[in-house]
Amino acid sequence: MLNRNIETFLGCDNSYDEAKAVVFGAPFDSTTSFRPGTRFASKTMRGDSYGLETYSPYQDKDLEDIPVFDGGDLELCFGDTSAALGQIEAFTAGIIADGKLPVMIGGEHLVTLGAVRAVFAKYPDLQVVHFDAHADLREDYLGASLSHATVLHRVWDLVGDNRIFQFGIRSGDRSEFRWGKEHVVTRKFDFVGLAAVVEKLKGKPVYFTLDLDVLDPSVFPGTGTPEPGGVSFMELLDAIQTVSGLTIVGCDINELSPVYDQSGVSTAVACKVLRELLLAVIK
Amino acid sequence: MLNRNIETFLGCDNSYDEAKAVVFGAPFDSTTSFRPGTRFASKTMRGDSYGLETYSPYQDKDLEDIPVFDGGDLELCFGDTSAALGQIEAFTAGIIADGKLPVMIGGEHLVTLGAVRAVFAKYPDLQVVHFDAHADLREDYLGASLSHATVLHRVWDLVGDNRIFQFGIRSGDRSEFRWGKEHVVTRKFDFVGLAAVVEKLKGKPVYFTLDLDVLDPSVFPGTGTPEPGGVSFMELLDAIQTVSGLTIVGCDINELSPVYDQSGVSTAVACKVLRELLLAVIK
Amino acid sequence: MLNRNIETFLGCDNSYDEAKAVVFGAPFDSTTSFRPGTRFASKTMRGDSYGLETYSPYQDKDLEDIPVFDGGDLELCFGDTSAALGQIEAFTAGIIADGKLPVMIGGEHLVTLGAVRAVFAKYPDLQVVHFDAHADLREDYLGASLSHATVLHRVWDLVGDNRIFQFGIRSGDRSEFRWGKEHVVTRKFDFVGLAAVVEKLKGKPVYFTLDLDVLDPSVFPGTGTPEPGGVSFMELLDAIQTVSGLTIVGCDINELSPVYDQSGVSTAVACKVLRELLLAVIK
Amino acid sequence: MLNRNIETFLGCDNSYDEAKAVVFGAPFDSTTSFRPGTRFASKTMRGDSYGLETYSPYQDKDLEDIPVFDGGDLELCFGDTSAALGQIEAFTAGIIADGKLPVMIGGEHLVTLGAVRAVFAKYPDLQVVHFDAHADLREDYLGASLSHATVLHRVWDLVGDNRIFQFGIRSGDRSEFRWGKEHVVTRKFDFVGLAAVVEKLKGKPVYFTLDLDVLDPSVFPGTGTPEPGGVSFMELLDAIQTVSGLTIVGCDINELSPVYDQSGVSTAVACKVLRELLLAVIK
Amino acid sequence: MLNRNIETFLGCDNSYDEAKAVVFGAPFDSTTSFRPGTRFASKTMRGDSYGLETYSPYQDKDLEDIPVFDGGDLELCFGDTSAALGQIEAFTAGIIADGKLPVMIGGEHLVTLGAVRAVFAKYPDLQVVHFDAHADLREDYLGASLSHATVLHRVWDLVGDNRIFQFGIRSGDRSEFRWGKEHVVTRKFDFVGLAAVVEKLKGKPVYFTLDLDVLDPSVFPGTGTPEPGGVSFMELLDAIQTVSGLTIVGCDINELSPVYDQSGVSTAVACKVLRELLLAVIK
Amino acid sequence: MLNRNIETFLGCDNSYDEAKAVVFGAPFDSTTSFRPGTRFASKTMRGDSYGLETYSPYQDKDLEDIPVFDGGDLELCFGDTSAALGQIEAFTAGIIADGKLPVMIGGEHLVTLGAVRAVFAKYPDLQVVHFDAHADLREDYLGASLSHATVLHRVWDLVGDNRIFQFGIRSGDRSEFRWGKEHVVTRKFDFVGLAAVVEKLKGKPVYFTLDLDVLDPSVFPGTGTPEPGGVSFMELLDAIQTVSGLTIVGCDINELSPVYDQSGVSTAVACKVLRELLLAVIK
Repeated sequence: MLNRNIETFLGCDNSYDEAKAVVFGAPFDSTTSFRPGTRFASKTMRGDSYGLETYSPYQDKDLEDIPVFDGGDLELCFGDTSAALGQIEAFTAGIIADGKLPVMIGGEHLVTLGAVRAVFAKYPDLQVVHFDAHADLREDYLGASLSHATVLHRVWDLVGDNRIFQFGIRSGDRSEFRWGKEHVVTRKFDFVGLAAVVEKLKGKPVYFTLDLDVLDPSVFPGTGTPEPGGVSFMELLDAIQTVSGLTIVGCDINELSPVYDQSGVSTAVACKVLRELLLAVIK
Repeated sequence: MLNRNIETFLGCDNSYDEAKAVVFGAPFDSTTSFRPGTRFASKTMRGDSYGLETYSPYQDKDLEDIPVFDGGDLELCFGDTSAALGQIEAFTAGIIADGKLPVMIGGEHLVTLGAVRAVFAKYPDLQVVHFDAHADLREDYLGASLSHATVLHRVWDLVGDNRIFQFGIRSGDRSEFRWGKEHVVTRKFDFVGLAAVVEKLKGKPVYFTLDLDVLDPSVFPGTGTPEPGGVSFMELLDAIQTVSGLTIVGCDINELSPVYDQSGVSTAVACKVLRELLLAVIK
Repeated sequence: MLNRNIETFLGCDNSYDEAKAVVFGAPFDSTTSFRPGTRFASKTMRGDSYGLETYSPYQDKDLEDIPVFDGGDLELCFGDTSAALGQIEAFTAGIIADGKLPVMIGGEHLVTLGAVRAVFAKYPDLQVVHFDAHADLREDYLGASLSHATVLHRVWDLVGDNRIFQFGIRSGDRSEFRWGKEHVVTRKFDFVGLAAVVEKLKGKPVYFTLDLDVLDPSVFPGTGTPEPGGVSFMELLDAIQTVSGLTIVGCDINELSPVYDQSGVSTAVACKVLRELLLAVIK
Repeated sequence: MLNRNIETFLGCDNSYDEAKAVVFGAPFDSTTSFRPGTRFASKTMRGDSYGLETYSPYQDKDLEDIPVFDGGDLELCFGDTSAALGQIEAFTAGIIADGKLPVMIGGEHLVTLGAVRAVFAKYPDLQVVHFDAHADLREDYLGASLSHATVLHRVWDLVGDNRIFQFGIRSGDRSEFRWGKEHVVTRKFDFVGLAAVVEKLKGKPVYFTLDLDVLDPSVFPGTGTPEPGGVSFMELLDAIQTVSGLTIVGCDINELSPVYDQSGVSTAVACKVLRELLLAVIK
Repeated sequence: MLNRNIETFLGCDNSYDEAKAVVFGAPFDSTTSFRPGTRFASKTMRGDSYGLETYSPYQDKDLEDIPVFDGGDLELCFGDTSAALGQIEAFTAGIIADGKLPVMIGGEHLVTLGAVRAVFAKYPDLQVVHFDAHADLREDYLGASLSHATVLHRVWDLVGDNRIFQFGIRSGDRSEFRWGKEHVVTRKFDFVGLAAVVEKLKGKPVYFTLDLDVLDPSVFPGTGTPEPGGVSFMELLDAIQTVSGLTIVGCDINELSPVYDQSGVSTAVACKVLRELLLAVIK
Repeated sequence: MLNRNIETFLGCDNSYDEAKAVVFGAPFDSTTSFRPGTRFASKTMRGDSYGLETYSPYQDKDLEDIPVFDGGDLELCFGDTSAALGQIEAFTAGIIADGKLPVMIGGEHLVTLGAVRAVFAKYPDLQVVHFDAHADLREDYLGASLSHATVLHRVWDLVGDNRIFQFGIRSGDRSEFRWGKEHVVTRKFDFVGLAAVVEKLKGKPVYFTLDLDVLDPSVFPGTGTPEPGGVSFMELLDAIQTVSGLTIVGCDINELSPVYDQSGVSTAVACKVLRELLLAVIK
């Protein structure tokens, strides 16, 4: 009697019941205007995580000691953005209802909106910490209000002024930066000030969204809109350990596009970031 | 005084006024469920058409003798399928109103629906000739009624029974083939019977939609869903010359995905097919 | 309560108990001397089979009607060829003991030897039908007796003279062809004579091994040692339907190397061939 | 009435008359001895600049405020180096005659010679600032005096001793470095001393030539002869802002080879560098 | 005492003295106007010929029985077309002077002119048999008289009317085809009539030039200007065996561009074609 | 009379007799469990070293002044790990017997074991300096004791406790790090402490093994198991110059996998590292 073929992200092979966190994929990139492909991120990460160890020499922790369940990928409706976001919201809400931490793998950055809606429904005082190359603060983009380029504006519609803390931002149009000055807290280019934000938000529920293109394209070429001038891998690892001081009630990593990652190094980076993130935020 | 940098498909450098046909791109692939990338087709074809001649030794005709205008690409809304189709419909309607032939470069196959709506508005007795590997006849797909996999069903909603003539079909689920038997005329695998259909439709207004994946993937690897077992390049050229016997009032070629065309051969095929199509159908 | 993430080849989602056939991967390519990579075949095929239908318009059959179980991939020892073959043999023997048909996805061609050993243990009068570009009949290769280039010689060590029937062979050194004339039945270049062989072997237990490089590289570029001059996809489909007249007690397809399949067309071919093979040989 | 399809680099959509600067492509790489492909740079940059913003958060300036005209690409004669340089020289001279700044996109580095000839004809006291990994100071290369490897020696033939200021040089043969010590000012590996040079050249006419391979290949892999050990993107941005203190009367960026830029990150870098350069040097 | 590292094309490891034929590379593509890269052909073929056998099951001959010397690659001057052709001519003349058959691996098609000059100097009644997708008959191209697109016109300048026999031609501008009708013998699309030409030229000295893009791009994608609609691999093999009836005094294969051959299938085709050509023409 | 085609790594064209060091390739990757391809490293490095200079501006030395012989590649038995290691050991022993320095290009890291056996036979007090991302200290891996993941454990079997000095290690399972603490000297992440180790080992015979994946994947993407967080190119160059203070009696660089190096930057890095290593360690 043989077992079915189960594919999970590295070490996330616990049962749902015993798990403290649930990893799942949201393979959606319908609003990506430039170069699509992030829909393949979660599947590719599961496959390539085979080449990675569960043990982190950075944190001296091991994923084998932390119960995580991998719920696979949502089957999302391409071309109907509202429907897809609804699916993500419902799935996330179920995980939260069971008292577990949702850890979503995008997909384009817009998927964050679905997850934030579910988390915000439970935590009305939700704060958002946001690592990204792009401000993502447009009111609308190419006529769409639901877009990868508007997602943090849509999150702001929910949480309101001064609840969003952005780091690493190095791209946006002039109006986004101007609007941002009034409504969100933006640190351009790097993570300076992150520790102070973590201190300030201590004890409050936080959603953490990590657009991997905050990394420099030399480190992370496999993304739709590479923006030179980003942070290094070690700067990001440090920032993730800093973030572990927060009370994270939901998180995601997004914008890995394996189509543009011919050597596989971006997927390796994404896998290691996810490993470190799981080790850092699951208490 | 220098001129602006104008990029057109091979030889399509006539003015709008003098043109009999208008080539334009519809770079949309939001509903593509498997591998996106057809949004890059029209731009890539314009660039690579540089390597092609305007003269066809097959038809002994030259594009320099036929006035065509290249209107560039529509800027379509990603993630809002209805809006994008509306843009395509309006643009096509304008071309038709000016008495010119619309020749659209997709994008995913769903873009055909926008163009057919505009053409059907003028020609209520419209017939449709369809070359494809896939039946594209589903009622809905992953919860969406507007999808690359449903597009011919949506066209049928407009034109009704026995107005759609499919050739080369070699993939679909069982229910599509069954539904098709009642409502459309389907030739599996090849072009046998095409000449008879052309004869039968003589004088009637016809929309011709060519999904390039009707070609075998050895000839045309650069597409989202390659289906082995397709027609050869020469079989397609012959079929295009046969189709020239029809009264074509609108046409498109679609589903080239340059992302999966590393060697450029699929783009070369698409360019040559478009050259031959323009030479064949513009009277 | 969520389910674990199960990945199977297209439609092979039945339970082990109800299944008539068991698909499994043997991701091993340690002896490949030129370009490795076939170890990735089974995983890639599972992922890309998402783009394929369960229904075959060629055979008018549907995989949904045929109970198949996908047992996932063996975890084989790289660098220790004997150990890896032992693992394959033991796994195959278990499937046979349960009265099910083993359907292996290689891997390099040497994996066939492991499966044949298990099948031969039960069926001492085993015959072997072999589609390939290469004779694979060397006595040894670069000093190794267990090699992709010697595998059919090793199978002959088991089954003896005139039990192996090769088709499509178009590469080998002079001595292989000479040795082959004495000991096996070889048809060069194509499938002429296959129907007669099927007739002759009727009722006898047959192992069917399909090296996908029997296909022309235009159809199937994604393989370690491409050999121009091969059969077409339709010729192979026809041959598979012919083979369905045999009493197949074990089979495999091998030598897909996704590393050399940038466009994905070879994986699409391999998936479709496996679908057609399952539909053809499971009674 | 539709407009022709105009393709320009990001935001360079002003009329020729109103423009202060003219961007144009010199797609020539005939003398490239190792890996060709820089001929595709300008076209690829125009297409991919779609993914970039006109606003620079580094300089807090916006290309929308600066009138630039994109004159497209020269159609240069491949295989006849002298003829191609003559075409570049004539085109550049026209721009200078109209009182505008020529901004050329190479092509291989030799194209600089054509532009410098035109600029030097107007400014006999021309100074040259040169960022590069390679000294490019050979007297001849493989028997050719006009070569990417000799271009700065040819420029020296015009401007004479101590008028060329090189930065970032980390490759060359021993004789080049020795010759260079007598005739040009070379800073190896980095930009130390650039501010002093800018100070020294204040008010003098300067041609600025930027071989993008001065960047480390991790940042800029898409070039013909990658040289590890280069400067970072932020170091280059800083240097460009320093260079803005000069009186630049002509400039170019060169040696992007999209053929070796599978992920597109090098093109993204080149686009951003050109944006920053335009914002920095147009007064 | 170790030997130096010698790299030869498959089986061409005889000494110069004992060799009947000399294989050498002419890695030049300076005039290629569209996509360069053929300069890498000869080196790549030597490396990948490792995966091929010396024995041909088509001709039942073995390269081990035929003495061939591989002279490596010429080091040609990029950017100075005349100089490069002079180098090729001189090298070829040396081989002829030693009574051996020159077998050149291009490079772009223009390299043929250098070799033909040397052969014509010895054989003033030289005939030329030419397989190609392109007529290559322009008087000049982009202002250059020495170009891949003019090479057969330049050969005609030497040999005169009705000495050039073209097969497989499917691309050219209208004027080339018209000029060709007066001066050369052109068979479009295929090899029909080749046997008759061979019969007619029996006993006369013939230079045979094979542009591999005569093959369909499905078979041979790795070339600068792919032209769909070409011949199959088996058609080419047959034609090569037909050509063996000629008195070939010089020959070449050209236009393999490994840069566009990601899967390696085109290199495999080129290697096998060269093996079959050597087996066919060396008497 | 022409010379045979000799291919050597940059400048290593001296005769065996006059050479102080012998470069050779060990193209073996049979035990690589994740992504194979290092077998192509040495051949690719020889070809691409064409783009590199023999002169180092870092060390102000020139390879033309240092006699090195390139012995080509061993032809190793794939699939029989013991046999392959035996071949490497014998070849290395011959070089040592002739009083020359062996400089091996891997291949996977396991090839180091073959060379170390030969060197250890002559120098029983051998010390080992090891740069790597991975500890490679497992007792066995997937059932194999001879594996890329166990190679330093096997070396320890020979040399014993505290003779192995590791730098840059950032990956391994928890048990490897624990075992390592007892038996080897491990510096995680960087080269801190290297100078002290060099001082301590002064005068003792040292084998230096450099797994190129110690570099960050941004610098060196072309490797089987990329590990983000590595050292920079300049850090490695510095470390190599530090290592030149040792008495190196054998060395290797390994784990370049050209299959995953589409842009060629990793090969460029490997070539430059080898040039600098030869210049640094040959006395």
